[in-house]
Order: sequence, then C-alpha cells, then structure tokens
Amino acid sequence: MEININKERLWDHIHSLGKIGRNTEGGLTRLSFTEEEKAAKEMVSQWMEEADMRVYTDEIGNLIGRYEGKNVDAPVVLVGSHIDTVINGGKFDGAAGILSAIEAIHTMNEKAITPYYPIEVIAFTDEEGARFSNGMLGSKAIAGTLTKEDLYQMKDSNQVSAAEAMRQFGYDPEKLDTVKRSPENLKNYLELHIEQGKVLEDNDLSVGIVTGIAGPVWFNVRITGESGHAGATPMGMRKDPMVGASIIISKIEEIASKEKQAVATTGKIESHPGGINIIPDSIEFTVDIRDISEETLIRLEKEVRELVEQVTEKRGLGGEVNVLHRVSPSVASPDVVKQLEESCMKAGLPTFHLPSGAGHDAMIMSELTDMGMIFVRSKDGISHNPNEWTDKMDLANGTEVLFHSLNELASE
Amino acid sequence: MEININKERLWDHIHSLGKIGRNTEGGLTRLSFTEEEKAAKEMVSQWMEEADMRVYTDEIGNLIGRYEGKNVDAPVVLVGSHIDTVINGGKFDGAAGILSAIEAIHTMNEKAITPYYPIEVIAFTDEEGARFSNGMLGSKAIAGTLTKEDLYQMKDSNQVSAAEAMRQFGYDPEKLDTVKRSPENLKNYLELHIEQGKVLEDNDLSVGIVTGIAGPVWFNVRITGESGHAGATPMGMRKDPMVGASIIISKIEEIASKEKQAVATTGKIESHPGGINIIPDSIEFTVDIRDISEETLIRLEKEVRELVEQVTEKRGLGGEVNVLHRVSPSVASPDVVKQLEESCMKAGLPTFHLPSGAGHDAMIMSELTDMGMIFVRSKDGISHNPNEWTDKMDLANGTEVLFHSLNELASE
Repeated sequence: MEININKERLWDHIHSLGKIGRNTEGGLTRLSFTEEEKAAKEMVSQWMEEADMRVYTDEIGNLIGRYEGKNVDAPVVLVGSHIDTVINGGKFDGAAGILSAIEAIHTMNEKAITPYYPIEVIAFTDEEGARFSNGMLGSKAIAGTLTKEDLYQMKDSNQVSAAEAMRQFGYDPEKLDTVKRSPENLKNYLELHIEQGKVLEDNDLSVGIVTGIAGPVWFNVRITGESGHAGATPMGMRKDPMVGASIIISKIEEIASKEKQAVATTGKIESHPGGINIIPDSIEFTVDIRDISEETLIRLEKEVRELVEQVTEKRGLGGEVNVLHRVSPSVASPDVVKQLEESCMKAGLPTFHLPSGAGHDAMIMSELTDMGMIFVRSKDGISHNPNEWTDKMDLANGTEVLFHSLNELASE
Repeated sequence: MEININKERLWDHIHSLGKIGRNTEGGLTRLSFTEEEKAAKEMVSQWMEEADMRVYTDEIGNLIGRYEGKNVDAPVVLVGSHIDTVINGGKFDGAAGILSAIEAIHTMNEKAITPYYPIEVIAFTDEEGARFSNGMLGSKAIAGTLTKEDLYQMKDSNQVSAAEAMRQFGYDPEKLDTVKRSPENLKNYLELHIEQGKVLEDNDLSVGIVTGIAGPVWFNVRITGESGHAGATPMGMRKDPMVGASIIISKIEEIASKEKQAVATTGKIESHPGGINIIPDSIEFTVDIRDISEETLIRLEKEVRELVEQVTEKRGLGGEVNVLHRVSPSVASPDVVKQLEESCMKAGLPTFHLPSGAGHDAMIMSELTDMGMIFVRSKDGISHNPNEWTDKMDLANGTEVLFHSLNELASE
C-alpha cells in the first residue's frame, strides 16, 4: 500500500533532533529551560516553517506551529507531544509525537490540502518532570491547572525555581494566565507516542489505538508485627509482618489479574530492622495500581485496603495504607477512536486497541477536549533509556494514521 | 519450698557485674580482650575464690574455677557460659550462667559438700562474636575446632587480629593447642542461660529443660525476572520476581509450621531497582531455618529448594539458593535431661522441655561430652538489649535446679 507521508524525511528529523543533548554514550538529556531544549526548539521551529506553519511560543514556552484552516476563527485541532527528555533518555519518547505531526502537516501542505479547521502542532514544555520533579507543565498551563505559586515553589537540584528558569529564557511567570485555553477554542487533541511497553511487539503490530490513559494510584503499605529472635520464637507464637506482607503482595497480583486491563505492582519493599536472624518488626512496601476506568480504580483501591485489613487482623498484625499519589484516568473520546480506526484501515493496518499505562500530556488535554492517542511499537518495550527504539516503518505507519486522522478531523 | 542457694547473693553478683562496661543509658559492652572484659574476669575470679574454687585461665583466656572432687584425676563436670556481651547488651545473657554456677558451688561449699568428680566453672572467651564477627572462640578452642590461622585471620573493626588482641592481654596464640581438652577429661557439660524467647513466659514457668540446640541454616535466595514499566506491562505479560518471592516467603512459613519444632524466618529483603513504578528485575531475601534434628533440617532445606524451583519455573523466573551459613544441631544428652528433670522435681518445679533456637557454647561442648542446658524465663523474650531482664526468683529457681544437678552429676 502506498504511503502518503515521507518516511525518509521523518527518519532524518528523528536522527537530527536526536543529536541535541546527546552524551558520549548516546543518551539524551534535554531538560526544560536549558540551552539544549532551546536548540531543539529552534530546530523544530525550522521544520514547522518548512511545513508552512506559523510558529509562535506561549508564556510557558510551549512551541506551537499553526497550519491555518479555511475558517481562521474555528476551534483548533491540536496535535502534541514534547521534546524535553528525562536524564539520559532516548530519541523517540516525545520527539516521535512532534516530528510525526510536523510530517503529517508537511504532507498535507505538499498535497495542497487546506483544512477547514486550523491545526496546531504543540511541543509542550517539560512533560517529563525531570528538572523540577513535576511534569506536564506546558499542558497543565493550557488546562489552567498550573498556578503561578507552583512555578515559584518547584525547584531543580540547584534550587533554581521554575519561575526563575523561565525568566532566564524570556518567559514571564506572571503572565502564566495568558497560556490557558478554553474548551471552545479546541476541537480535538491527538498525540502519537511510543508505547513504552511490549503489547504491540508481542502482537506483531506497528500501531495501536489507545483506549484511555490509566490513572496511577500509589500506596505505601506498612505492616507491623513483633520482632523476635529467629531461633527462639516458635512458629505459633509469631506475629511476623514479613509473612503478612508476602501474602498481601501475592494476593494483590490476583486482584489485578482478574480485571480486564488493570495492573498492580510492588516495586519497593523494606524490612526493619533487616537482620537475617531477626523476625522483622515492620515491613513497608509500595503498590502502584492503574486502570483506565475510575470506577475500577476505586474498586481496586477498596479491595487492596480490605485485603490488608483481613490479613493483618487474622495474623494479629498492624496495617496502614497511605496514598502517596493519585491521578484520575482519562478515557479516549469514542469519536476520535472511531476516526483513528478508519485511518488505520485507510493505511492498511489492523485496528488494535490498548490502554496506556504511562501518563502523557493527552491525559491533561482530555480535561479540555476530545482526546485520542496513537501508539507505535517500542523495541523490547524499553523507554527512558538510550536504547529506546522504534523502527522506521513503525513510525511511518503511525504517522500515516495521524495524517489521515488530521485530514478528517480538520475537514468540514 | 525451701531453696538451698542464696538468691540475694546471686542477685547482688548479677548487679555488680552488670556495672562493668555499662554506658550512660544502661547498655553493657564487654568485648573480648578489652579492659572491660578483664575487669569482669577479675570480679568473677574473686567470687570463684570465695566459693572455694581454684582459679586459672587457659591460653585463649577462658576463666576457670575448679571445685576439687574426691577423685582429683576423675573427669570433670563442666558448667559454663560467658561474660562477654554484644555491643549495648544486657546484664543476664551469659552472666546468668556463670554467676548461677558459682552460686551453686558456693552453696555446696557452705554445706560442706565435696563431690566425687571435680567441678569446673568456665567463662568461655568471646561467645558472642561481637568483636571479631566469629563467636564461641573459647569453647571452639577447647573442642579443638579453632585454628591458629583463624586467630590471625579474624579482625575487629580496627583491623586488630584476634591473635594480636590475645597477646595484648598476655595470651599466646601459638599455644592455642594447649587449650584443647579430650572427651576423656570431661564427664558432662551443663549450662544455664536466659531463654531469649517467650515460651516459658507464655507457659508461666520459671525454668525449662533444653531438648537440643537448633542448628541454623542461612540461605540467600535471589529471584530474577523482567523489569518493566508498572503501567505499560499488562499482568499477563509479567515475569515479576516480587510476586514470586512473596509466594515463596509465605509458603516457607507453611513448610516450617507443619513441623513440631522447626522455625523459618525471612528477616531481610531487597528489591532491585526499587522504584515505585518499576517492576523489579530481581529480589533478594534471606531464609533462616532451624531445627534440633539434623534430619528435619536436611529435609526442610530440600523442601525450600524445591519450592523455589517450582514457583520460579511456573512463573518463568530465575531462582538461586545459596547457603550463607550452616551449623549442625545438637541434641541434649538423655541422661543429663533426666537428671535435670529430677532436679526440677526436687526444686518443686514442673518439668517443661523446649528447644533452644539460639546458639550457645553448649552446642560446641556437645561435640566433646554429654550436654544439658537449663533455660530461665526472659521478660518479653528480649535479649541482646539493655532491657534484657530475668526476675530474681526465676534466676534463683534455675540456679536451684543447677545446684541439684551438679550435686548429682558430680557424685559417685
């Protein structure tokens, strides 16, 4: 099947942008409000202009290329991602979304397609949160959920505030409100991103349509018992928090596995005091639960709390569950999903649906407008790593789907 | 019932010795070959002399008080323990055994009892291993299982070898062989010790007769899996070592619980890399298994290995089990146990049997001669801690049992 977009140009752009902020081992570091990020924006601006877009930035540094529509006053079809990276990241996370969007517009322009609705490509500032430990600054500013106080409070490792860093690059934190957009201004939001997982790879597919972005709830669970000598305390006299914690961790897997899409993970565990021959007095571990349905997430949280209560009560242990972090899940717009399905068919690709376990700017944008996302296959599911990789053809396929979708969503 | 021994004198000795090496918060530190240990030995020597014992030390610093028997050439009834402590320990662990033995002899002497067999009270050097991370030096030297090379190799935190430390206090590591005793030289070995557990407390008993000393086997278990993004890896695609480890840990409890006396403990666990939102690539945890039967211990070790194999195979994980430390269990001599039972009855106490989960010099001495141990109740099972406590009456009861047993075992 014929591909409309220019996959060679796109591939060149990926590798040219992938040279900015690169260390000697090949890892990329482009933190927000740094010379590396500035250089990346300048490069991307030039490609936007080559695609016949008008380029501007807002007061938080979001870089925007506008491809004008027949109706200049109509709401905008927004297509975004980011060009900042984590420390020692790869060349696809974020960049793939921006460069595929520019490529789709460039192709439209070459084919002399003028959409009815204006299309804007937006590279959001600081999606990763690698500098100020607080990500999605650009999209939150557009949604109006970032405050001026936030900008003054969040600091990088050198104690430079986001507000100060913005000023150094010519942005005025006091004008943050001007960044905000109203829902009436937006028609849809689209984002292409690497999967950061192995579902597409395992299914031997280039492209997937995201059904929603799972909201993570992070718990800290603390199980307390009675310490004692490992030799001198008979099994029947123990109140061992390690065994209690183990039962809970293995049952949490069962709870998540019976759901359709939910995931649950214990990544961190610590025993205190931690001697080989001492029954611990307490165990702390984390639980990360995600689902794209708020209802399921609430139910799972309840089930985990009940499980902790049951196991600790039965074993004479103490149990505390504290929420460390909670983000609501976002569901992709059924209309946009339908459009993405049609675009997959036009591109000669199977339509395959999967949830996004990782967070994206699309999550924030879904608060304002109808959202949809395209995933492209990630080799071995690796991301946030210099070894991050997406094949040229997979990226081209995803971009072709984006091209068809933008054409349709921006037409009258 | 009348008590023969002098419980007030014994109690005074406990508290006088408990002042040597005491810090401002009440914790005791008497490491081997230090001024504190020397002062403790001098105090104990004096009490031995008051009980009409002849005092001497051997070349590893074991302090011995000999109460002569009618037959000076007959094998010795040895009664021992230690007066070294862990760092910030309590005043009963070790000291209770030495001071109760001296009290029992003192009472015999006051009653003008001359036994047929000589009795020796022995305060073994460095039972705890707190200085050179290698305990039971004195008893191992007597059993001939400590080598000169060991003395030169084991170092304290200041890189002082045991050999060097010995020389500073007038002992010659080159004469280590002179410490060794032959089985023919020994008739029995007795030891009174605080329980360091709560079995006696839970059964509302002063005194228990030890059936044997559990041999610990320490394993390090490493479970390896596949790391991945906690959000982007569906449950069905995971090879999560944390869940595998949890199942193993909870099943190990079941394995030990179905035995009569075995115990199993996971005291230490670590996940790698240990991020909240990352499925770990590996989990390491320890297992401490103990039983007083070698046969049971071997069977349990096999069951744990099979369990690790089963769980890891089923879940596509890797599993390694490495033995860190292994000590054979020691069984108390049935003859000595029988004598202790009779002594309990004479003292008006119920006869109650329990295993020792912790290690003692008695374990080493059982390689040479018939061994028996008396446990006295520990408040809350606490030991190796300034809050270690045994009530005056419990200590008196245990000492009364020791008095009767020594009388009988040392008589013709």
